Amino acid sequence: MRALVFDGRLHLRTDYPDPVPMPCESIVKVSLAGICGTDLEITRGYMEYRGVPGHEFVGRVVQSDSGALTNGRVVGEINAACGKCNSCIDGMGRHCATRAVLGILGRDGAFAEYLRLPNANLIPLPDAIADESAVFTEPFAAAFEIFDQAPLRRTDRIAVLGDGRLGAMVALALRCEQFAPVVAGHHPEKLKRLAALGLQTESADDLVPGYDVVIDCTGHSEGLALAIATVRPRGMIILKSTAAAGAAMNLAPVVINEITIVGSRCGRFRPAIDALAANKCDPRALIDGEFSLDDGVAAFAAAADKSKFKILIRP
Amino acid sequence: MRALVFDGRLHLRTDYPDPVPMPCESIVKVSLAGICGTDLEITRGYMEYRGVPGHEFVGRVVQSDSGALTNGRVVGEINAACGKCNSCIDGMGRHCATRAVLGILGRDGAFAEYLRLPNANLIPLPDAIADESAVFTEPFAAAFEIFDQAPLRRTDRIAVLGDGRLGAMVALALRCEQFAPVVAGHHPEKLKRLAALGLQTESADDLVPGYDVVIDCTGHSEGLALAIATVRPRGMIILKSTAAAGAAMNLAPVVINEITIVGSRCGRFRPAIDALAANKCDPRALIDGEFSLDDGVAAFAAAADKSKFKILIRP
Repeated sequence: MRALVFDGRLHLRTDYPDPVPMPCESIVKVSLAGICGTDLEITRGYMEYRGVPGHEFVGRVVQSDSGALTNGRVVGEINAACGKCNSCIDGMGRHCATRAVLGILGRDGAFAEYLRLPNANLIPLPDAIADESAVFTEPFAAAFEIFDQAPLRRTDRIAVLGDGRLGAMVALALRCEQFAPVVAGHHPEKLKRLAALGLQTESADDLVPGYDVVIDCTGHSEGLALAIATVRPRGMIILKSTAAAGAAMNLAPVVINEITIVGSRCGRFRPAIDALAANKCDPRALIDGEFSLDDGVAAFAAAADKSKFKILIRP
Repeated sequence: MRALVFDGRLHLRTDYPDPVPMPCESIVKVSLAGICGTDLEITRGYMEYRGVPGHEFVGRVVQSDSGALTNGRVVGEINAACGKCNSCIDGMGRHCATRAVLGILGRDGAFAEYLRLPNANLIPLPDAIADESAVFTEPFAAAFEIFDQAPLRRTDRIAVLGDGRLGAMVALALRCEQFAPVVAGHHPEKLKRLAALGLQTESADDLVPGYDVVIDCTGHSEGLALAIATVRPRGMIILKSTAAAGAAMNLAPVVINEITIVGSRCGRFRPAIDALAANKCDPRALIDGEFSLDDGVAAFAAAADKSKFKILIRP
């Protein structure tokens, strides 16, 4: 099959082996896939991943030992867990220590004609959700994860740091749940587009400290420092960026101001699917380009352009 | 009066001006004061504090415009707040942005014959608590702060990192509340003494990851890295050490494992006083020396000795 492969460099292969399903797995023909910041990080060495990247997708089941899934249009949870360890038994398969992660860790991903996932990971989609919306399910679920982790109050003043893909998804998820966040960033054009979606925006340079909750979606290690400077004493920072590796940081204010920092990653798909099906939010306004798989390398270059939100690949 | 002063170096002054009370303040004659890690940090430049250090004390009110306090034996909350700002109105005077902090920020402290504090900060002591126990009220309150901030469950496996003063106080506070923490450190002699107090101990090198809650009391920036490596996915780290300034740190696992980090500083005195009065815990076993104020410099040297727990100064 055709697949975009990262083996130290990113390139298209036309002779990549078709995925072979294990028992209780299905083969999905990818209809549409999205490029996210993690994919870009992978091409810079993140997780030392080698293989087919891509973990945001919508597709159709073309081979399955589950009758209920066969031929169904699906999205898929990206963590393939063991199902037996304490994390899995506690319902936290996303934290299974021996998990594989689609396109990120030990399992080929979605920038290919076909992928395989456990049946348990696949979720049939209602017809109401178009492919172009459904492809946002995974990042939208990651945004909804905030509500599973952090007890936000309706009166909380919330700042989202970062006007990129992740910040936009988080802000849209917050609005779905009736919160009114301020999105702060450094890109006037993107802030203008987010404002056109009805979001409150502000230049990151103009942020006045004192927010109850600050959500770091910057993808930069400096994001946490800004979050610490922006949140009120006893406030909460939700850390969505993994790009904080190795940076020198002064965490003394975290103790002095008794700040809580909540690391947050992937989320359950159901709340995201429900919100999309109910048309509570339309993420399609964030689509800035669609490339064929053959032009996958060019798609990555477009996704790395800081003026863009979401770039899609249609195999 | 006599006072231990830090003005770039620590020395005794015999001609230090007596404190002059403002309205609604009292003068306390210090009976006994304790040296903590923050005091040692101050002599290394922390907070750029200049003046009389010391914030752990028990004393007697010798001058007051409050009849209820006059001649009373007291301990005192160390944060002198404005009483008017949003933090103060929310009952969080400990986070008042314009607060002074006894012996730490803008207000002379307890290593002196006399100190002044707002009447509102002073709490009369029951006779049941000896001075040698009462002097631990402030660090004990800081340990109890954990319960105000973090929803610990009876079944939680809890590790306390650090076998110093702070780790010992936190572990004792946890035991008061029926938790059974493991104290992990690098000082076999101190671990042995903590074990003799009925605490479970372990060499920090032997800690097996997977704890639900890890409390960093190490006072070192490496403490947080060890905590991150020790806590389970979705677990909680309580950060009690302020010594994390400027260290390079990889916080990616905080996001990937969805760890919550709770910064924790000072606490309410009442729970600590109640626990001491009920004899739920006797911190006097941690006293490793008592010095007169005249020997205050030597007292600091003794407190810096890593084999010691608590050093007291009796003015």
